Amino acid sequence: MRIDAADFVLKLVLFSNLIFYSIGSFMQAALKQVKVGLVGLGTVGGGTFNILSANFKEISERSGLEIIVTHIGARRDNPAVDLSLPHFNENKPVKVSRDIFAVVNDPEIDILVELIGGCDTALTVVEQALKQGKHVVTANKALIAEHGNALFKLANDCGKMLAFEAAVAGGIPVIKALSEGLAANKIDWLAGIINGTGNFILTEMRDKGRDFSEVLKEAQRLGYAEADPSFDVEGTDAAHKLAILAALAFSVPFSFDKVYTEGIQKITPADLKFADNFGYVIKHLAIARKTSQGIEMRVHPTLISKKQMISKVDGVMNAVLVHGDAVGSVLFYGAGAGAKPTGSAVVADIIDIARHLSSPEAFLNPVLNEKQKVNFVDINNVELAYYLRVQAKDQRGVLAGISKTLSEHGISIEGIYQQEGEPGESKVPVIILTEPILESAMNAALKEIQDLDYTEEEVLKIRVEHFKG
Amino acid sequence: MRIDAADFVLKLVLFSNLIFYSIGSFMQAALKQVKVGLVGLGTVGGGTFNILSANFKEISERSGLEIIVTHIGARRDNPAVDLSLPHFNENKPVKVSRDIFAVVNDPEIDILVELIGGCDTALTVVEQALKQGKHVVTANKALIAEHGNALFKLANDCGKMLAFEAAVAGGIPVIKALSEGLAANKIDWLAGIINGTGNFILTEMRDKGRDFSEVLKEAQRLGYAEADPSFDVEGTDAAHKLAILAALAFSVPFSFDKVYTEGIQKITPADLKFADNFGYVIKHLAIARKTSQGIEMRVHPTLISKKQMISKVDGVMNAVLVHGDAVGSVLFYGAGAGAKPTGSAVVADIIDIARHLSSPEAFLNPVLNEKQKVNFVDINNVELAYYLRVQAKDQRGVLAGISKTLSEHGISIEGIYQQEGEPGESKVPVIILTEPILESAMNAALKEIQDLDYTEEEVLKIRVEHFKG
Repeated sequence: MRIDAADFVLKLVLFSNLIFYSIGSFMQAALKQVKVGLVGLGTVGGGTFNILSANFKEISERSGLEIIVTHIGARRDNPAVDLSLPHFNENKPVKVSRDIFAVVNDPEIDILVELIGGCDTALTVVEQALKQGKHVVTANKALIAEHGNALFKLANDCGKMLAFEAAVAGGIPVIKALSEGLAANKIDWLAGIINGTGNFILTEMRDKGRDFSEVLKEAQRLGYAEADPSFDVEGTDAAHKLAILAALAFSVPFSFDKVYTEGIQKITPADLKFADNFGYVIKHLAIARKTSQGIEMRVHPTLISKKQMISKVDGVMNAVLVHGDAVGSVLFYGAGAGAKPTGSAVVADIIDIARHLSSPEAFLNPVLNEKQKVNFVDINNVELAYYLRVQAKDQRGVLAGISKTLSEHGISIEGIYQQEGEPGESKVPVIILTEPILESAMNAALKEIQDLDYTEEEVLKIRVEHFKG
Repeated sequence: MRIDAADFVLKLVLFSNLIFYSIGSFMQAALKQVKVGLVGLGTVGGGTFNILSANFKEISERSGLEIIVTHIGARRDNPAVDLSLPHFNENKPVKVSRDIFAVVNDPEIDILVELIGGCDTALTVVEQALKQGKHVVTANKALIAEHGNALFKLANDCGKMLAFEAAVAGGIPVIKALSEGLAANKIDWLAGIINGTGNFILTEMRDKGRDFSEVLKEAQRLGYAEADPSFDVEGTDAAHKLAILAALAFSVPFSFDKVYTEGIQKITPADLKFADNFGYVIKHLAIARKTSQGIEMRVHPTLISKKQMISKVDGVMNAVLVHGDAVGSVLFYGAGAGAKPTGSAVVADIIDIARHLSSPEAFLNPVLNEKQKVNFVDINNVELAYYLRVQAKDQRGVLAGISKTLSEHGISIEGIYQQEGEPGESKVPVIILTEPILESAMNAALKEIQDLDYTEEEVLKIRVEHFKG
């Protein structure tokens, strides 16, 4: 009987192990597919869905996971979104509920994405999702700035992640930079141009000498500014974002109510001109600084020297400049708003959580697709514009001869410049800027130019890069 | 007897659970402290140790962990490093071994940091550490670019992380941006100024009209360039870094041998001047682009329009511009080399791995220290410079009067400018730039200036920010 008991125990232990391992493998298998519920299908919600759908293959490659939106909660459809994409969700149509809490309460979902904005329903959505064991991604700056302390306490109590990269500076990964990339540093200060509308207005006023109210109307017409633009031009929006940046930079609670805020309404084109004369630009800057007195957080129009990189940030673009004791100054620059840039940040958070859930043992390792056939392009097959410097004898017909040779190889000239010969100097540089052409064609032309009897020295060829977008 | 058996089983199960939970808590407790072994104590090794030591408190706050260097392997001491810091390593001195493999084989260590450089010993160190179950952090671009494919296969087989943020662009978190922050995007192309020495040389040549060889000698004197500068000026260093960036951007294997590389030796000050006349700067750019033909990877001198932000990256600074289909163009800018910036990236990787090991369930959540007493500075106690615009009656004594009032409040004037009065215009703007002063003092002075009988309209005050460092 003792043997029987021992045998029973042994079997029980083996059986327990079996169950344990089965659950383990099941969980691992289940995590190959991560299911996302999306609440809110406006500009950012639509952008997020479209990125997850359009880049499904690339995201799967990069993360080793299938990230699928299975359930959307939205009061109305978004015409920019096609919910019937065949590669998505195992060929099933995405379920859509008009009651957003049907998504929050959907037990299938691993990650809930809150993109309805505001602090009322959004707060309930995030709290309820965390309590139900879902990880949450949000783009809601007001929610994090005003309720972040309670929400992260709740998230940590639930052992869940609450990610918010999209809350500040759109697609620029500045939240990740502060929390992770620069985590080694004592941050001394940071300064950001983090409201695109305000920056657009100041840039137009400066460049075209137009008045504040006139440019504001244009920004509204272009869809940059809301019908009620006070959040943008009075600095509330920037203050929300600054409260978030400062909390991360200094590891302190979110303290939106401590941000000093001043708008840009009083700036005139004349001020921008006067500042320019003194070597400055005026930007609506959000600044957080740690001094011996404590922490400063302030949003106000600010003169910045034109020598600073951040002074070049114009139009609707955003930038955040961070100064750490180890890294020095680091600048992050890009689009701060819009469906796709903000969606880029939301999806990055989703991928982060998904990768974390699926492969914690090698979380940081890159996923390099070794099976994929990769083709690398030989430099001869690259098409670029060129700068050429030909040192030529100072005589007639040089420009014509070089132009003719280039033309015979199908190379168009964008600009040509021949320096005046210096007294006593027998050769002069001829500078040519070409239109884009295959490197192989350029090399063939250069060989002929090199052999022209008035060409002295080796011809110098420098490639020209025209960045688009 | 059946009851006895059942009782025995129950006790066994309870006991197993107890053991299970004990091991669990023990592991959790053990992970509160993460032990780091450091191999190589040169510039970057010294910088890494000094950051971990100097920012021990902040790093503990931000990560919720104690990250301690317990064992250093170095052939010689580094006079810039003080190994006897009292807060570190539970008041024990850091163990130093001349045999670096004593560190690699130290069973106490959770994370091994390889900072010896090169591809010989470093390769053995990294392989051996991974095989022994250690996570690895490296700053070694040549190692990752040339051996990354095999190393990440090994790391994944071992279930360990191999982190390399410091391998590209020093403290700028661009590896993290590509692998995580921009993971939602199809990357179309990226372009980087990722060799500080080369960029310093081109900047000096342009600004001072000096020859390549002359500036190169100065760079060597300043310690920017190695005695053998070929890695920098011929583009090999940039090609290593580009191979890493391209692999991450396009999720393909590291392919250093496919990078087309051209140096900057043939550029003359005259070329920089001609380019300038056409509206361009010449930079030594590393470019990766995905086209319908395949992937281009090339490092060569390149003309870039002066309208591009990246054209403003001067001196030893680095920048990487990334274009994704969702995010558009994003620029990352900062110091690309040096003990502290590179150490910043090494330590960020260490913190990433440590946080990941310690709290996977809430990895992405910020750590906000709620217990800490935080003091927020009132705007009245902030000291800044100011731009003032006083609309004043066009009469004598205005400048003198305003200057006197400012002076009485202890405010120094940096510049003052009074516009000529327009015919028929009774008032003129007076613009003043002040030295830094407390906001409260400025407000007191402004109140008096506002009350002067020649002051018309409300005085406009804009703060001036002089970023240091």
